[in-house]
Amino acid sequence: MVKKLPVSPLAPKKPAKPKPLAGMRLSALASGALYKGRDDVLLVELNKAARLAGVFTRSKMPSAAVDLSRTHLAATKGRTRAILVNAGNANAFTGAAGAKAAALTAQAAAQKIGCAPHDVLVASTGVIGEVLETAPLLKALEKADGSADWQAAARAIMTTDTFPKLASASAKFGNQTITLTGIAKGSGMIAPDMATMLAFVFTDAALPVGVLKKLLSAANADSFNCVTVDGDTSTSDTCLLVATGAKPINGAAIKSADDKRLAAFKKALSRLMQDLAQQVARDGEGITKLMTIEVSGAENNAAARQIALAIGNSPLVKTAIAGGDANWGRIVMAVGKSGEKAERDKLAISIGGVKVARQGKVVPGYREAPVARHMKGKEISIAVNVGVKSGKGAGQARIWASDLTHGYISINADYRS
Amino acid sequence: MVKKLPVSPLAPKKPAKPKPLAGMRLSALASGALYKGRDDVLLVELNKAARLAGVFTRSKMPSAAVDLSRTHLAATKGRTRAILVNAGNANAFTGAAGAKAAALTAQAAAQKIGCAPHDVLVASTGVIGEVLETAPLLKALEKADGSADWQAAARAIMTTDTFPKLASASAKFGNQTITLTGIAKGSGMIAPDMATMLAFVFTDAALPVGVLKKLLSAANADSFNCVTVDGDTSTSDTCLLVATGAKPINGAAIKSADDKRLAAFKKALSRLMQDLAQQVARDGEGITKLMTIEVSGAENNAAARQIALAIGNSPLVKTAIAGGDANWGRIVMAVGKSGEKAERDKLAISIGGVKVARQGKVVPGYREAPVARHMKGKEISIAVNVGVKSGKGAGQARIWASDLTHGYISINADYRS
Repeated sequence: MVKKLPVSPLAPKKPAKPKPLAGMRLSALASGALYKGRDDVLLVELNKAARLAGVFTRSKMPSAAVDLSRTHLAATKGRTRAILVNAGNANAFTGAAGAKAAALTAQAAAQKIGCAPHDVLVASTGVIGEVLETAPLLKALEKADGSADWQAAARAIMTTDTFPKLASASAKFGNQTITLTGIAKGSGMIAPDMATMLAFVFTDAALPVGVLKKLLSAANADSFNCVTVDGDTSTSDTCLLVATGAKPINGAAIKSADDKRLAAFKKALSRLMQDLAQQVARDGEGITKLMTIEVSGAENNAAARQIALAIGNSPLVKTAIAGGDANWGRIVMAVGKSGEKAERDKLAISIGGVKVARQGKVVPGYREAPVARHMKGKEISIAVNVGVKSGKGAGQARIWASDLTHGYISINADYRS
Repeated sequence: MVKKLPVSPLAPKKPAKPKPLAGMRLSALASGALYKGRDDVLLVELNKAARLAGVFTRSKMPSAAVDLSRTHLAATKGRTRAILVNAGNANAFTGAAGAKAAALTAQAAAQKIGCAPHDVLVASTGVIGEVLETAPLLKALEKADGSADWQAAARAIMTTDTFPKLASASAKFGNQTITLTGIAKGSGMIAPDMATMLAFVFTDAALPVGVLKKLLSAANADSFNCVTVDGDTSTSDTCLLVATGAKPINGAAIKSADDKRLAAFKKALSRLMQDLAQQVARDGEGITKLMTIEVSGAENNAAARQIALAIGNSPLVKTAIAGGDANWGRIVMAVGKSGEKAERDKLAISIGGVKVARQGKVVPGYREAPVARHMKGKEISIAVNVGVKSGKGAGQARIWASDLTHGYISINADYRS
């Protein structure tokens, strides 16, 4: 059970208010068992035309929910009919009893909406090591009536999140205008290597599973794989992309992710997932400042990402940022420890757009006043050129990271007990 | 300039008080520039018979001191005559000016004791990005008279350390009794991948460079490579093993690290370096509890070490320990994210000697009282069997890690500014 936390100072000023999406229904439910006085269960019902792709945690200790969803997704080849999410209990490291509980909840959802159990995916998030109590969940499911809006859905999946995470976009898709809407949760145990949180993105477009898989994988690489709060990877990470199929495209069926008609859709999906991912970073436990870290001049994009994450995960960088200290020496340290190629004597660092280091040393008499002003703000921009390559072939990456504060310690030194 | 911090609650009760070692002299000096009111420079003078081996940071951004010492060590093939250490300024990321400063100080030390500049190694630790001011250092060097004891030497190299780190041991070496004495420093920016701190270990034995290299590398693997405070790796890490040669062994010269006459010496060296490494962990910035993490049943020893470090570096595990919470779910998470092979459904975890998880789930009704008692203490023991291999071939490792506390945040959010 989690204490109520103050809303993150980095929360979006104007939360998105997406309209309902054709081809699906949402039910936000209160089990009364996982959290008191709020919804803690979400049921997503999908039409028969829906197709789904998913990516899951790379943890070697996946939760029972992740195990079950992987199996069900493979069995139906992406013809999923429902997604059942609960907050407050991750049902991870719970052995056979946990697997049975996950299966039972999928079965109940299937019964409720009239499909086979393997048509249901499940996602659980919260405390690790306690078997999910199914009775309250099954009872809550009885009340599912598809009447929830997106806000309620996003709220029902929150744990230590301090604000619901939603984003919406539209795009031209052939001769149609289609909509994309997504919700996400996550505020601790957040590090890339897949989604590291729960995220569900829906579109009313009609797209086959093979195409969805490729689109999800590509958009994921630049979004959820580019945020870090604490470098810890959850056992329960799940990111699903669903096409409800409510708006079939006119003309030839889309069979490849390279189809040119997908151009606008791809852009919109990418933007939307980056928006959600950034919201997750903005709600990092105890956050006071959001870092946007851009690395360029690396051997390749993967190396750039590793270096950016080494900076964003470094406790010494994170605490310096929290303290409003433009301590670029710690950025140098983090680049050095990343293990990736970097040219010390060509390294350049900018903070808030002001170059503070160049050619492997401090810029003599750099303008400290604008940097100090920037460091007092809530959004800190760090750019590093590691000097390995230049021009078009140079690797680059951008990630978002939270700082490390007394708030993080307070939240996590007293989470379960 | 660093604030005076209270002594770590994990500091050894009885600090070692080693006797002087034959074949070397220590001078602890005050530059007046790096710190006020304390020694901040150490000069170690070695007899001509001395032989030395060293390991340095794996950072891609090594300090000017590390660069110079690597070059000098290679040039003299380990026939070093002096080690010059300064605290307060790492002279890292300082470009050509930093390299020149390092060379100047080595030259001055060489002049002082009558040897060539390349006979001198240097080590600098402290703030990154400021060129080392040489004038105060050179002036301090003039006063070097070899009169310092080990305590003073260990104090002169401290930065945010809250206690001096010393250890001493003796061992039968052929028909002689030889002595080993070491000093170390480090309290933040501490993670393995080499020594990640400064450590200087001396013995009065006579040993060739080739043998010293192998002995240092082996002992380092089980000591300094097994501590972590914050997962951050310094630009300045330096660990040196020096044989002053004051006590030549009777009988045939020792030419191989496998020489059986070295058995007792190896054990003593290993114990001593583990002692120093543990002292570094015990002085981790903001530490309130020391974790000893033992991993067994892994694919091999390297995998076991990676898993142990994933646990010891996890902010969520570290904060749980700080909060006195036996949150083994977070230990499961950390094992899962390590990337190493682990059998979820065979995983077993003990805390304070009490088995809390077995066969991939919590031990039903495990005795919570002794675990809670253990968690209230200052020394936390965590043992994990990852169930990949059993018996003699199974990989195992032991590491020491600090917890993550408000103290760490306070120290590091306000270090430089």
